[in-house]
Amino acid sequence: MLRTHTCGELTIQNVGQSVTLSGWLQRSRDLGEVIFMDLRDRYGITQLVFNAQVNAELCEKARPLGREFVLQIKGKVAERSSKNPKMPTGDIEIIVDEFTVWNVAQTPPFTIEENTDGGDDIRMKYRYLDIRRSPVKEALLLRARVASAARSYLDEQNFVEVETPVLIKSTPEGARDFVVPSRMNGGEFYALPQSPQTFKQLLMVAGMDRYYQIVKCFRDEDLRADRQPEFTQIDCEMSFIEQEDILNTFEGMIRHLFKKVKNVTLESLPRITFAEAMRDYGNDKPDIRFDMKIVDMADVVGGKNFKVFDDAGAVLAICVKGAASYTRKQLDELTEWVKRPQIGATGLVYMRYNDDNTLKSSVDKFYPEEDLKKWAEKCKASAGDLILVLAGDASKTRKAMSELRLEMGSRMGLRDKDTFCPLWVLDFPLLEWSEETNRWHAMHHPFTSPKPEDISLLETDPGKVRANAYDMVINGVEVGGGSIRIFNKELQAKMFGILGFTKEDAQAQFGFLMNAFEFGAPPHGGIAFGFDRLCSLFGGADSIRDYIAFPKNNSGRDVMIDSPAPISAEQLKELQIEVKKV
Amino acid sequence: MLRTHTCGELTIQNVGQSVTLSGWLQRSRDLGEVIFMDLRDRYGITQLVFNAQVNAELCEKARPLGREFVLQIKGKVAERSSKNPKMPTGDIEIIVDEFTVWNVAQTPPFTIEENTDGGDDIRMKYRYLDIRRSPVKEALLLRARVASAARSYLDEQNFVEVETPVLIKSTPEGARDFVVPSRMNGGEFYALPQSPQTFKQLLMVAGMDRYYQIVKCFRDEDLRADRQPEFTQIDCEMSFIEQEDILNTFEGMIRHLFKKVKNVTLESLPRITFAEAMRDYGNDKPDIRFDMKIVDMADVVGGKNFKVFDDAGAVLAICVKGAASYTRKQLDELTEWVKRPQIGATGLVYMRYNDDNTLKSSVDKFYPEEDLKKWAEKCKASAGDLILVLAGDASKTRKAMSELRLEMGSRMGLRDKDTFCPLWVLDFPLLEWSEETNRWHAMHHPFTSPKPEDISLLETDPGKVRANAYDMVINGVEVGGGSIRIFNKELQAKMFGILGFTKEDAQAQFGFLMNAFEFGAPPHGGIAFGFDRLCSLFGGADSIRDYIAFPKNNSGRDVMIDSPAPISAEQLKELQIEVKKV
Repeated sequence: MLRTHTCGELTIQNVGQSVTLSGWLQRSRDLGEVIFMDLRDRYGITQLVFNAQVNAELCEKARPLGREFVLQIKGKVAERSSKNPKMPTGDIEIIVDEFTVWNVAQTPPFTIEENTDGGDDIRMKYRYLDIRRSPVKEALLLRARVASAARSYLDEQNFVEVETPVLIKSTPEGARDFVVPSRMNGGEFYALPQSPQTFKQLLMVAGMDRYYQIVKCFRDEDLRADRQPEFTQIDCEMSFIEQEDILNTFEGMIRHLFKKVKNVTLESLPRITFAEAMRDYGNDKPDIRFDMKIVDMADVVGGKNFKVFDDAGAVLAICVKGAASYTRKQLDELTEWVKRPQIGATGLVYMRYNDDNTLKSSVDKFYPEEDLKKWAEKCKASAGDLILVLAGDASKTRKAMSELRLEMGSRMGLRDKDTFCPLWVLDFPLLEWSEETNRWHAMHHPFTSPKPEDISLLETDPGKVRANAYDMVINGVEVGGGSIRIFNKELQAKMFGILGFTKEDAQAQFGFLMNAFEFGAPPHGGIAFGFDRLCSLFGGADSIRDYIAFPKNNSGRDVMIDSPAPISAEQLKELQIEVKKV
Repeated sequence: MLRTHTCGELTIQNVGQSVTLSGWLQRSRDLGEVIFMDLRDRYGITQLVFNAQVNAELCEKARPLGREFVLQIKGKVAERSSKNPKMPTGDIEIIVDEFTVWNVAQTPPFTIEENTDGGDDIRMKYRYLDIRRSPVKEALLLRARVASAARSYLDEQNFVEVETPVLIKSTPEGARDFVVPSRMNGGEFYALPQSPQTFKQLLMVAGMDRYYQIVKCFRDEDLRADRQPEFTQIDCEMSFIEQEDILNTFEGMIRHLFKKVKNVTLESLPRITFAEAMRDYGNDKPDIRFDMKIVDMADVVGGKNFKVFDDAGAVLAICVKGAASYTRKQLDELTEWVKRPQIGATGLVYMRYNDDNTLKSSVDKFYPEEDLKKWAEKCKASAGDLILVLAGDASKTRKAMSELRLEMGSRMGLRDKDTFCPLWVLDFPLLEWSEETNRWHAMHHPFTSPKPEDISLLETDPGKVRANAYDMVINGVEVGGGSIRIFNKELQAKMFGILGFTKEDAQAQFGFLMNAFEFGAPPHGGIAFGFDRLCSLFGGADSIRDYIAFPKNNSGRDVMIDSPAPISAEQLKELQIEVKKV
């Protein structure tokens, strides 16, 4: 080893020892007679001292060493006169006896410090320098810890890690596939998996009983912020289980991860239905770190000649505890906020429940105090609270109110990144109607099983059929989702019929899975967790990028290696394809 | 859970308990009054009993149940009258009270038993059925155990698991890349990684210090038996180390794996140089489960007017202990064997050291007994041994002798699959001359560092320069290989020069790595293990296929899902490519 210790481990216990360290020169403070340097490696930072009175020659040699030079130093551990309690090595420094420059370095294009002066683009181009920075490095270390903890839990629960293939087959259903031309089978293509869904179901048919994989998946979608063309899933499937078993098993996993990685002990996870989530929070991935449930005001606002409310498909309110002190200016600003196109409300009605118990609304003209009292009762408001009301088209208003609720949660400081409130959302609809294709689509995927008690509705009222499908949501983020699968041929055939597949279509697209089901499919179900998202949640970050070692930008480019790129004419010829730019 | 126990866990301790099992009907023996069935799941097989005298109706219902039906049964654990000591559940059986058919099954196209009647092709097409067979299932379970043990060792040693990207950039050097057309960047392509080599070196520049990943890699090569277009590596890299540190760390890993997975305690690994391996075994991945080293006979066979030997570039022998009893017929057959084109020898000379101490060779005419005595001495032969001699072109003869040695090892029963003899092969040549391109090629890759003491030879005699490169070999199979990397710019530039790269070529192909090296690269090196191969070795199998859940055939096809396959005109258009079959 080119070191005896790392830069993160020497303490007061080591004083007097001769040590060898290797690392990067983070910073140099040249005080003339004395030069202090910080030497950094993955494990920490250790202070070095060169003293001209002790060794003038060495000190002169050290003076020109630049930022990010790679050094090996030998010296003695000494107690610092002015200690730094914030650093694990803050009690000591190394009196350097000799050093070797392993490598010089150009001046980095941005500072390699906790907080950098580099913008996103330059940091992506020099990702290998950005990773030297503690926040990015820690994000990657955290990711490794989450993966390790997930594996140890799943191993313990008798899940078998099985690698499914990356070169598979394109299916027209769903998002766009990345494809790979086959040289040996000219004119034919592999596709990269959007998920190992069919393979994990085949593994259940194969009797593997419990499968997992932390696996790369690929979607050729137009990228939004925080979507990556390649992403990682914790992918799991179990046989001979019911929904309850999956919920318990993966509730166990998430509790294990929080305990192991964050030392957070979670209570058992609350469960709400999709219908309740939509009713109380206006969306299917509620942030339940705070209450502020949406209240349907229909029965207390009607018949007062306020046309906006009378004509509305829905009148919805939230009660913001302790916000009665909001000024007119703040409320005007909030009104502008809800009218932004992203939120799409036409206006905002409010009611203050003042500390002196008076009630004051922006629609006093229509609603005298006795009406407002009913509002307050309905919203369980008390002195000091602010009621915010949106009205209009039912679905748009619910969506807007969901946004407003989250915004008010943030403004009121109710969305602390270190508070974690996971829950299960259950009983998703099996199908959703697409106006575009004028047919039913599977909300999860076509192998998701309906709830047995709803099967009779499949023919009469498909939209009402609930699925044995579940999402795990943490702090308003869907971190995982899955379903119990159909394993009965007749039900599957009926399902394909409802989805508008002919027998031939179904065979062409899902033939190999359906054929496998002819040979004895067990009852089974599973779940997949978005691993990048989960890691960023554990790290308290909004973006998943820092939790991916080498991410791509919003155009799907890796700007560090400058990829994608043209390939040679010879390669194209061998692959029997031609570029035909449009 | 749709069971209280698995099919592998009930023993005499459970007698009298009411249990619920779920699984596949492996086999049914209908004795009329009594029906015995074997119910199978991943964990084992449990015997079920239906007795017409106890419950005639149930017995009749059970009679038609077919092979591979998926059942749930409820019943009582009873002690068997005739126990089966070979099965963990062999002491008990279940007296069935009721059962549910989860799914029927078509008759499988081959028997789902330890030994099947199915050929390779049909088993690949119905891979999900083949995996139900114990040997294939066990191979996949073994693979998961090896992965888990490797991760726990590397985690323990402070290696960080980092996922490197799958969509990268094509480089013309090396084997053919699989490429992925980019829809968002028309006319441009990603490539799938042949290995994460450059990314792991970037992670060292990034200060990650110790990296590992169990990772899919891709090579678009014409497939030989046992080569897969996608394969898995245990990929590792370390900073601030010397070769010795890598050897110790990964010797530690392999010992850990053998202990954990096979409960085999390995001695410390012998080390030999590439030159010694070529001299003693005729190849760079020697099987040292047996000795039988190759002996250079030049100084004891020359000058006796035997033209075949006198004109030969090399005369090489092996001494096969205890094989003097080989008959003339056997020796003739062996002579035919070495003359096969795959071996390529022109003939075989032998000498028997008979039990009566007489020496008898196939070339007695030229070598009287006193000469043969010298042969025997040279080969350290004694009574009962057989000496086999090949002669001809030096390199071809060495290769042929290497094959003959392995063949004789097999014939003499010296290559037991349960004996494991790993070793390190060190000091590989840095460069090899290519007649085809008329230039030097890097034997490992262009970032491999020469041995410091050989650097001066780079300009005078490049072929003599040894590399800091090493392979781990087990039982004649190269399971891993790596090198210490060049981290010095000047040396790297010199290396590129020797490999015939212009500055521009080098920049175009390896620019992003070379640029990264401008910002402070640490001394580093690494290794990659062929994970599929390692697993098959642990499992004692010759083929890697059974250790891959869903392998491809020799044409790169997945016959189960019928991939690759044509894609739609719409997809091609979106990707801005056209198929141009040649």
